[in-house]
Amino acid sequence: MAGGAGATWEAAEVRAVVEAHCAAADVRDWSAFAATLADDMVYDLPQSRERVLGKVRYVQLNRQYPHDRQVRIERIVADGEGRQAAARTLVTVGAEEMRAVHFFTFDPDGRIAGVTDFWPESYESPAGREHLVERY
Amino acid sequence: MAGGAGATWEAAEVRAVVEAHCAAADVRDWSAFAATLADDMVYDLPQSRERVLGKVRYVQLNRQYPHDRQVRIERIVADGEGRQAAARTLVTVGAEEMRAVHFFTFDPDGRIAGVTDFWPESYESPAGREHLVERY
Repeated sequence: MAGGAGATWEAAEVRAVVEAHCAAADVRDWSAFAATLADDMVYDLPQSRERVLGKVRYVQLNRQYPHDRQVRIERIVADGEGRQAAARTLVTVGAEEMRAVHFFTFDPDGRIAGVTDFWPESYESPAGREHLVERY
Repeated sequence: MAGGAGATWEAAEVRAVVEAHCAAADVRDWSAFAATLADDMVYDLPQSRERVLGKVRYVQLNRQYPHDRQVRIERIVADGEGRQAAARTLVTVGAEEMRAVHFFTFDPDGRIAGVTDFWPESYESPAGREHLVERY
């Protein structure tokens, strides 16, 4: 990425880093995965109030996932102006398919400085709005 | 918004529509809320597999929410190039505070064509990674 403080960022650059990050997670290329990360990056899981401090621990957390995990990108929202991104992925572990939502921030060199993940689970449709919604 | 097919979009324009949409929901200004929406917009809730077709029904769904709902924006990711956005909000209904994640797409005139919402609930920290994570 054409980085450096004060450089103009393009959404395409932000998008490319997110794609490289997710692709490396999918194929378990931990060297390529680490290359997308700032050393002092922070990983945040608001739902469980967990935080992982630093690239070394974050890579280790990912290494210990089951070996049959697959990560498929559904959508990337790339904000060059704000040096941030959001993504939706489908994560498959064995027979289980999980939806994930990721928010990314970047350091001035174009490495990921922060990842905040959400894992939204399925729930039953609430009563009282059947006249407004379709089910699928 | 400076709209029209083929016009160059700026992240700032995308951001402004998301801000106007959330602010209108917060103060229950349904006229301003509807003004941010395309007539044939689609609202999607993947967790409950629900879909709402059209601005009229989507406004009605929001009107029937409790009157003490508050919507506070935490973060907006605005992708002018992709004509899309993502946002995180904190939604308060009475004493309950809920996290929400929203993905937006836009029509060529700068109105919201699609909203996909996720409501990630709290969960317990999984065992086996205590050596890597901090709790908060």
